[in-house]
Amino acid sequence: MKVSEIGEFGLIDLLAKMIADAQINRLSPDLLIGIGDDAAAWQCSDSIQLATVDSMVQDVHFSLETTTWKDLGWKSLAINLSDIAAMGGIPRYALVALSLPEKTEVADVTALYQGMIELARQFKVAIAGGNISRSPVVSITITVLGISSNKAILKRSAARPGDTIAVTGYPGGAAAGLEMLTKKLKFKPPAARYFRNAFLHPLPRVIEGQLLVKHGITAAIDISDGLLADLRHICEASHVGARVITDLLPVRDMVKANFKEKALALALGGGEDYELLFTGSAGVIKEVKDELRCPVTVIGEITESEPGKISLVDAAGSPVKIGRTGWAHF
Amino acid sequence: MKVSEIGEFGLIDLLAKMIADAQINRLSPDLLIGIGDDAAAWQCSDSIQLATVDSMVQDVHFSLETTTWKDLGWKSLAINLSDIAAMGGIPRYALVALSLPEKTEVADVTALYQGMIELARQFKVAIAGGNISRSPVVSITITVLGISSNKAILKRSAARPGDTIAVTGYPGGAAAGLEMLTKKLKFKPPAARYFRNAFLHPLPRVIEGQLLVKHGITAAIDISDGLLADLRHICEASHVGARVITDLLPVRDMVKANFKEKALALALGGGEDYELLFTGSAGVIKEVKDELRCPVTVIGEITESEPGKISLVDAAGSPVKIGRTGWAHF
Repeated sequence: MKVSEIGEFGLIDLLAKMIADAQINRLSPDLLIGIGDDAAAWQCSDSIQLATVDSMVQDVHFSLETTTWKDLGWKSLAINLSDIAAMGGIPRYALVALSLPEKTEVADVTALYQGMIELARQFKVAIAGGNISRSPVVSITITVLGISSNKAILKRSAARPGDTIAVTGYPGGAAAGLEMLTKKLKFKPPAARYFRNAFLHPLPRVIEGQLLVKHGITAAIDISDGLLADLRHICEASHVGARVITDLLPVRDMVKANFKEKALALALGGGEDYELLFTGSAGVIKEVKDELRCPVTVIGEITESEPGKISLVDAAGSPVKIGRTGWAHF
Repeated sequence: MKVSEIGEFGLIDLLAKMIADAQINRLSPDLLIGIGDDAAAWQCSDSIQLATVDSMVQDVHFSLETTTWKDLGWKSLAINLSDIAAMGGIPRYALVALSLPEKTEVADVTALYQGMIELARQFKVAIAGGNISRSPVVSITITVLGISSNKAILKRSAARPGDTIAVTGYPGGAAAGLEMLTKKLKFKPPAARYFRNAFLHPLPRVIEGQLLVKHGITAAIDISDGLLADLRHICEASHVGARVITDLLPVRDMVKANFKEKALALALGGGEDYELLFTGSAGVIKEVKDELRCPVTVIGEITESEPGKISLVDAAGSPVKIGRTGWAHF
């Protein structure tokens, strides 16, 4: 069987099962979270350490025809900071593994680092090491280590029936940007700039993730695969279902105006928004909404239905059908 | 300028300087070792945390025509454990970032993990997470996190004039294996098996690294780029020179017999041996030699000459000339 047939998540499940069966992780009693969340976590003296890794591969995750090297550096680090944010942690150290064709311009590599440094400075992350290899395509794999200051973390597995589901920001902007760039769509400058930045220059919700922990939220994920796909990850890990009221989804007017009836699909299935999706009691979600400086929108609730099953309904409670539901790597 | 013109180490120096100039790492006062050693290190409560990352890229670091997937998994993890060993640390957690073509067989990916799991079990390393991406070539980037139990670490920058230089094992075996596999050389089974395993199935010197720290050794590196190139890394980081007595080099008879006059070049320049190269007072080196269960050979001494300058002499003190001196990635 080819990996394209089993699929990304099928392959992850298979490898996670191999590791579980081999029982090697039992030899590490301090390990709190292994494979299957946004980051790994382990106890270290009186703090919880977090670690995550993510790759950006040329012509799979980015095209050098549509991104600048500086934006590429920013985004490569941003997607990892987002994983630490989704655990409610403080990112501290980054290791950068670059794979580059020989003909790569040195000035492009330094621009890549400028983008990374800019974001690293913003969140006080040290670039502590890395590796450089030759490769036929550009590939950037960054590992970020962090800590949880609150001695508590946000997990995918902590959603409970009755929880309210909320999301930060405006999902769908990144997908709009990807559509615009790949299909060479023309929009007015403010919309074009917004779509482009949403896709190429996302701001990870690092501060927001820490505030979620502070308020007692326990279940969260960052939206990388798409709102619905990532909500499904939460539901599967928590053995719960969910109901999403599509009329509540915070889709920006610019997306609605330029993408019409496709706007909802972009918001639900687009991915790469790097917003936080989280669940908690209605009261706690309200407190969070009041404190966070970014938009926080309630979009539905966790249910007792079949684990991983998500029903989409409109404001009147009627079922909503939608085609695209996130993207897989294979 | 292309990265092939500035070279791997030139590019690393340039990026390290950018990060130093940006002063972002000053925002992390707990960082003990940043870019420029085998692993990054930082203080965390009462322990020192270590982190390292290394990549294996298809047709750059390995060929699927000469390695099995299981050996590839073993080696991908081994080269990272070796970096933790070179800091004298205990490896604890691994994150595995895989990039795979869609047509990759799932059975090959599980074989890769079998190799990793086998080595992880041997050193009680948890495989705590990772990432899977699509890519035109197979690429495996592993991050390993570890700790220093002794609250001390081995650094490249701690060699002092007068120190004795010693090496574990028999450098040159891996280079012999690479020569055999790429040039399709035929040798008798014991030699062929030894060369193959030295290159494809190296055993990282994890226990030995920890014993070096215990005995008070402070300067070490693992031999990945080649004995001479890695000794030069130590010399440059420590601002010292070195004298290596080539007649003392522990070159295995199998390498000498099969590679004749090329044997010395393989041992000095070959790379990928994953032995430890370290320096210390003659007395401490003798203690280490008595305790370590692997061969430990004194091969020269650290000098006050021009930083990074290494002179090669024979037993009589006459200069020795040699061509190949390690390999760069570009």
